[in-house]
Amino acid sequence: MLFKVEMDVNVPHDYDADRFAQLKQAEKDRFQELQRAGIWRHIWRVVGLYSNVSIFDVESSSALHDILTGLPLYPFMDIKVTALCRHPSSVHDDDR
Amino acid sequence: MLFKVEMDVNVPHDYDADRFAQLKQAEKDRFQELQRAGIWRHIWRVVGLYSNVSIFDVESSSALHDILTGLPLYPFMDIKVTALCRHPSSVHDDDR
Amino acid sequence: MLFKVEMDVNVPHDYDADRFAQLKQAEKDRFQELQRAGIWRHIWRVVGLYSNVSIFDVESSSALHDILTGLPLYPFMDIKVTALCRHPSSVHDDDR
Amino acid sequence: MLFKVEMDVNVPHDYDADRFAQLKQAEKDRFQELQRAGIWRHIWRVVGLYSNVSIFDVESSSALHDILTGLPLYPFMDIKVTALCRHPSSVHDDDR
Amino acid sequence: MLFKVEMDVNVPHDYDADRFAQLKQAEKDRFQELQRAGIWRHIWRVVGLYSNVSIFDVESSSALHDILTGLPLYPFMDIKVTALCRHPSSVHDDDR
Amino acid sequence: MLFKVEMDVNVPHDYDADRFAQLKQAEKDRFQELQRAGIWRHIWRVVGLYSNVSIFDVESSSALHDILTGLPLYPFMDIKVTALCRHPSSVHDDDR
Amino acid sequence: MLFKVEMDVNVPHDYDADRFAQLKQAEKDRFQELQRAGIWRHIWRVVGLYSNVSIFDVESSSALHDILTGLPLYPFMDIKVTALCRHPSSVHDDDR
Amino acid sequence: MLFKVEMDVNVPHDYDADRFAQLKQAEKDRFQELQRAGIWRHIWRVVGLYSNVSIFDVESSSALHDILTGLPLYPFMDIKVTALCRHPSSVHDDDR
Amino acid sequence: MLFKVEMDVNVPHDYDADRFAQLKQAEKDRFQELQRAGIWRHIWRVVGLYSNVSIFDVESSSALHDILTGLPLYPFMDIKVTALCRHPSSVHDDDR
Amino acid sequence: MLFKVEMDVNVPHDYDADRFAQLKQAEKDRFQELQRAGIWRHIWRVVGLYSNVSIFDVESSSALHDILTGLPLYPFMDIKVTALCRHPSSVHDDDR
Repeated sequence: MLFKVEMDVNVPHDYDADRFAQLKQAEKDRFQELQRAGIWRHIWRVVGLYSNVSIFDVESSSALHDILTGLPLYPFMDIKVTALCRHPSSVHDDDR
Repeated sequence: MLFKVEMDVNVPHDYDADRFAQLKQAEKDRFQELQRAGIWRHIWRVVGLYSNVSIFDVESSSALHDILTGLPLYPFMDIKVTALCRHPSSVHDDDR
Repeated sequence: MLFKVEMDVNVPHDYDADRFAQLKQAEKDRFQELQRAGIWRHIWRVVGLYSNVSIFDVESSSALHDILTGLPLYPFMDIKVTALCRHPSSVHDDDR
Repeated sequence: MLFKVEMDVNVPHDYDADRFAQLKQAEKDRFQELQRAGIWRHIWRVVGLYSNVSIFDVESSSALHDILTGLPLYPFMDIKVTALCRHPSSVHDDDR
Repeated sequence: MLFKVEMDVNVPHDYDADRFAQLKQAEKDRFQELQRAGIWRHIWRVVGLYSNVSIFDVESSSALHDILTGLPLYPFMDIKVTALCRHPSSVHDDDR
Repeated sequence: MLFKVEMDVNVPHDYDADRFAQLKQAEKDRFQELQRAGIWRHIWRVVGLYSNVSIFDVESSSALHDILTGLPLYPFMDIKVTALCRHPSSVHDDDR
Repeated sequence: MLFKVEMDVNVPHDYDADRFAQLKQAEKDRFQELQRAGIWRHIWRVVGLYSNVSIFDVESSSALHDILTGLPLYPFMDIKVTALCRHPSSVHDDDR
Repeated sequence: MLFKVEMDVNVPHDYDADRFAQLKQAEKDRFQELQRAGIWRHIWRVVGLYSNVSIFDVESSSALHDILTGLPLYPFMDIKVTALCRHPSSVHDDDR
Repeated sequence: MLFKVEMDVNVPHDYDADRFAQLKQAEKDRFQELQRAGIWRHIWRVVGLYSNVSIFDVESSSALHDILTGLPLYPFMDIKVTALCRHPSSVHDDDR
Repeated sequence: MLFKVEMDVNVPHDYDADRFAQLKQAEKDRFQELQRAGIWRHIWRVVGLYSNVSIFDVESSSALHDILTGLPLYPFMDIKVTALCRHPSSVHDDDR
């Protein structure tokens, strides 16, 4: 199952910088683990913003829910989820 | 240069069905030409809507403008363009 | 897979009444077929509007896309799709 | 009387974690009590968000008001209430 | 059961004036019938707009749905329904 | 002069509970004083929200302004004011 | 009683030009009549738009309603009405 | 040059009351100075809100910018600026 | 005086193509005349849309109003006007 | 590559004034460095707001991302990025 997930990160001005750096590193580690597993299929930065556009390929909606809510930076994110499906005109068999 | 482009297609109720079918076929042909050229990198359908989420990889903003405004279904589309860039955490060298 | 689907029906003032009545009957037949199959799990009317709130239980996102875009009244609908999942606090094993 | 209720939970970053865990447990207990009583008919999680979509079946609007404003997590919720009614096409006598 | 109903009337420029006058008269007759029955409890005009704010007191949500969708001007209306209940501070026993 | 006034009350999580209880009691006293005077003609709760829909009948716009900005809970309110007038179809001479 | 009224005029592309010119002339005549009577106190154009910002000084809300809905161009207008009152800091006794 | 300026004042709950009273007095003094100079041509209160609608008549856009950003309450204001011009139908030579 | 003007062009599907081509040519001629006169200082296309972002340098708000409403494509445009002024940090004496 | 960037600066009421003055000076220095390099092509103030409209001419989307997120005031900014391209009607060869 394919989903577009848009994540905006908002950090309060007075949040502890060291703690946030640790969360950011943990987020990066978790992201790369999921990317290598083929679950977090794509990620792009939105120019000028602390935001990304991502494509997830998951076994179920519940799996996506658990992944997203378990992200280290989740408490700082505004998240928008959109269900996608394969486009019939695509010439690539594996366009995910 | 990477862009996310979101296209919503709106057809008036009284539009001629044959003419629209021809435009749709021309759109599909043009899409596949651009997909094979590596310009229209990704396309996904939005579930339940006559809409897609696409990723374009173009030489310049002007090139993208010419491609989009030249699409056969362009006069029926609402289009939203967002500039993207590579994400520094990505483990894939070629994640476009 | 569970989805909430919200449908608003908008009919142009000058649309042929007989043709719309036929589409409405076809919509009802298709709805009941899907309801009996356990796919269109729930439907409620929104008070005062020509709108419904529905819950679908489908095998895949693509299946939902094909069902929705194939509805007889689809060309008159504004549709909003939201991916849902089971709530962990639910005491019902089969709350879909 | 049927209502769709959509609840979004927002917790301040600096809120005491233990106190919130207690409120969450109290919320779960109250939810299950209302679910067993047939009042909180359905609940689904919205994928990726700390939100739910619920269907309530109550004796009166006032009863719903008292239930919602008495929820342990109510002070953290954004709530949207929509009045529903049975759909005439439904083949289920008891689709609530 | 109490509901606030807000109705905005939009008439196309090219709609037949006589036919609209007939619908308006039928709307007025139906309104007064419902007002006398105590169902359409209050109605006010919104200054400068072809809109009203109304309070309905109905037996059920379904009853309100049938009343609203049966209004002669319903096809020209944008309608917004809000469920209300008695306010506990009110000194009037019968403030509906 | 008739006005619809919609009031949403928002209390910060860390506001002193005793002080707020005092303000609430003062608000109730002031409301009942204005209700008995025939100025605060109607009040209804919006189901599920800390909000009300009210109808005021005042001598002037300035009088309404002074009443609203003088309410004990005014600093916590989002307020929306809409000018109303009598509806010509009403069968009640005194529908205010 | 003072009101700010914002009017946006929208004319369909295919509307008869002569008929619209007549309505425009009638609108201007009616405007000047009301301006001379001190009712339509101020009018300004919004730069670049077919819109104005106006201040009305009327005896009652109903009077304003009748004036606005009776304007020759009213069927083409989107109208927004805001109740105003005198500002206590004003050094002008007659700032209306 | 004429501008409509709409100002909404928002004061945090925990802001020091004495300091705000001083700023308010300074704001009033500055307003009256500008009103007497014919620059702050009009001001009206929006009924029920801590907001005003104002008309400025300034030599340049830069002059307006300096005036607004220099107001004592500016840090608490949401401001909306709209460029206006004289209306050709006006019978008053000096309607500013 | 400097203004940012954003123009979106919307053409009905059934508009006569030849007539629109003539209007487009007239628009281009008028644009270049104003550009050479230093009034229409800058113009950029928005990628993927039939829209532009423009900077005007005019003698007065009224002059801008007359220029914009006199554009050949004005009846097809949605227009948004924002008053600008020189930025104090700019190192260019003539940044307009 | 050309981009329109709109920046709104929001400073919390309780932010340290000296520290903000330092950030502002650093922002000005960085801006002038980029302006001299021909990257930050244009900047204008929005009248009445702590906002600017800017035009950037950069080598790549990534370059813009790094520039914007590295601005000293970036943590206080709401930023909106729009991809632009040269307008074909422009008579200036170098209108950037």
